[in-house]
Amino acid sequence: MVPLNTTDQETPSERKEFRRSGPHFADRITADGRDGWPVEAGRYRLVASRACPWASRALISRRLLGLESALSLAITDPIQDERSWRFTLDPGDRDPVLGIAFLSEAYDARETGYPGGVSVPAVVDVPSGVLVTNDFHRITVDLATEWTALQREGAPDLYPEEHRDEIDEVAEGIYRDVNNGVYRAGFAEHQNTYDDAYRRLFARLDELSERLSTRRYLVGDTITEADIRLFATLVRFDAVYHGHFKCNRNKLSEDPVLWAYVRDLFQTPGFGDTVDFDHIKRHYYRVHTNINPTGIVPLGPDLSGWLTPHHREELGGRPFGDGTAPGPVPDGEVVPEEGRAV
Amino acid sequence: MVPLNTTDQETPSERKEFRRSGPHFADRITADGRDGWPVEAGRYRLVASRACPWASRALISRRLLGLESALSLAITDPIQDERSWRFTLDPGDRDPVLGIAFLSEAYDARETGYPGGVSVPAVVDVPSGVLVTNDFHRITVDLATEWTALQREGAPDLYPEEHRDEIDEVAEGIYRDVNNGVYRAGFAEHQNTYDDAYRRLFARLDELSERLSTRRYLVGDTITEADIRLFATLVRFDAVYHGHFKCNRNKLSEDPVLWAYVRDLFQTPGFGDTVDFDHIKRHYYRVHTNINPTGIVPLGPDLSGWLTPHHREELGGRPFGDGTAPGPVPDGEVVPEEGRAV
Repeated sequence: MVPLNTTDQETPSERKEFRRSGPHFADRITADGRDGWPVEAGRYRLVASRACPWASRALISRRLLGLESALSLAITDPIQDERSWRFTLDPGDRDPVLGIAFLSEAYDARETGYPGGVSVPAVVDVPSGVLVTNDFHRITVDLATEWTALQREGAPDLYPEEHRDEIDEVAEGIYRDVNNGVYRAGFAEHQNTYDDAYRRLFARLDELSERLSTRRYLVGDTITEADIRLFATLVRFDAVYHGHFKCNRNKLSEDPVLWAYVRDLFQTPGFGDTVDFDHIKRHYYRVHTNINPTGIVPLGPDLSGWLTPHHREELGGRPFGDGTAPGPVPDGEVVPEEGRAV
Repeated sequence: MVPLNTTDQETPSERKEFRRSGPHFADRITADGRDGWPVEAGRYRLVASRACPWASRALISRRLLGLESALSLAITDPIQDERSWRFTLDPGDRDPVLGIAFLSEAYDARETGYPGGVSVPAVVDVPSGVLVTNDFHRITVDLATEWTALQREGAPDLYPEEHRDEIDEVAEGIYRDVNNGVYRAGFAEHQNTYDDAYRRLFARLDELSERLSTRRYLVGDTITEADIRLFATLVRFDAVYHGHFKCNRNKLSEDPVLWAYVRDLFQTPGFGDTVDFDHIKRHYYRVHTNINPTGIVPLGPDLSGWLTPHHREELGGRPFGDGTAPGPVPDGEVVPEEGRAV
């Protein structure tokens, strides 16, 4: 484990091929509190990096569901040091609510001497300062299904009962070949490992592009968990995966369908307003010294296309189903200007 | 000097900013033989790498001028080892004409213990095995102006007297900001050095794009030395400079004017038939371990667009002026299939 050379969940423990370790702390925060962690307004704090695609999911779900006041948010510095994620963006370099300088302190409070990596997203119990979960797959599903009592009026159903099998199936392929696939390509130490990841990635993207050519969203006719998962990788594609991870058959912006799809989501309240391209670029290019030893952060790509018309509404679809769009981003959570696509 | 981490002419002697060393051996092969090297059919051998943009100029000029039988050609392995450019593509790992395994042997024959780098293009005197010149700026100009007696019938005038001032002026900006600019960006060890190179590069490309929006070629209405110099960098842009050197504001293929311009040249006999994308990609990604430590060579970009219609003929222009297109590539010099854009 080389914390400075890893990002969020990844642990390149095996030298030949990158493998992602599973989350170690998988307690669930539920309506009935069966793991000892009941859903409760103001009790928990979501710790996220705006750089990280896995944390990005939670940021989007929280916004779409209107959970901002129920579940507070700590944003880490995009660049980890040898103690991993840190709160150097906050006054005094400490999270003002948890009072800690490093996320690892909440991990230590949960399990002394835990030898695994420190990852985001993480949910911390504010009263005790103890980490509850770093299970990035589960966190968003639970926000959608267990936190319903605290969701805003008009919150969409991001994991609708009648589509769960299809969402899970689509999300599984996206996870393997896209979300994680870009890391397999980028962290490959052997040409054939890279080649394999690259081929699977673009085969899957081609399949998704085909699927999305006639439908506005991946499953059903509304935004679901599946779209959130795909968006988290696609929004980073041209900024970091294309060059830094060598996923360079084409830029996402060269695929008319996927480029329109991701812009549609980007321009939907709750998606683009969580994205910080400055954090994304600095994280990947400065933390992965094993693939970018100079630490130079590219000035490109030109981001001006993100706000251009996408015309996806012509495909129909109801973004929020029977619900409504989320309101504006709360004060204090607005992405700084240097991170925005303008 | 770190030969394994440098390419062709470059010598990153100063750690803060990449500076290109000038050619050390600048004797000229002329019609009157005033430097002791008269133009003579069959006497000299051009040593080139198809990976190298500086050598690429000489390959193109030689083809356009029909000098293939007068000036023979040795192609080096795209990947240097610690003794630099080598003839490992030839039987027995030796150039069949010069009988040497490394280009450095011709350098040594010229000057014992020369401490500088070994670079291509290089012209070697076959009878003595001595290096004559590695002056990449001068070589192509001399092929155009001094080798006239040996040029094919219908050879174009690549450095026409009445346009030399303009060609030199345009070429100077191209050299500084584009040909060498991509290396300044890619080899930068400090963010501000990179930022400066990136900005100058794209400012110059924008200016060239504007210039080429209403005229088919850079100077006059025919192909000249200026086009050859610009082509050498543009043809490599999306394959290596965009990602590997972080010149990523946009791909060349995203600039409609420059993309059509470079395809027009690529599809002109004498240009694209000298280009080996396999050599280009393997050279940059495997030799520069300081910026790509894993040595993984990207599978992208998709090269299928190179042969698509460019419509530049609508701008008028006479590619070869009063001359004609060169004939087919000689046997033995055809770029292998894996290097071609198909």
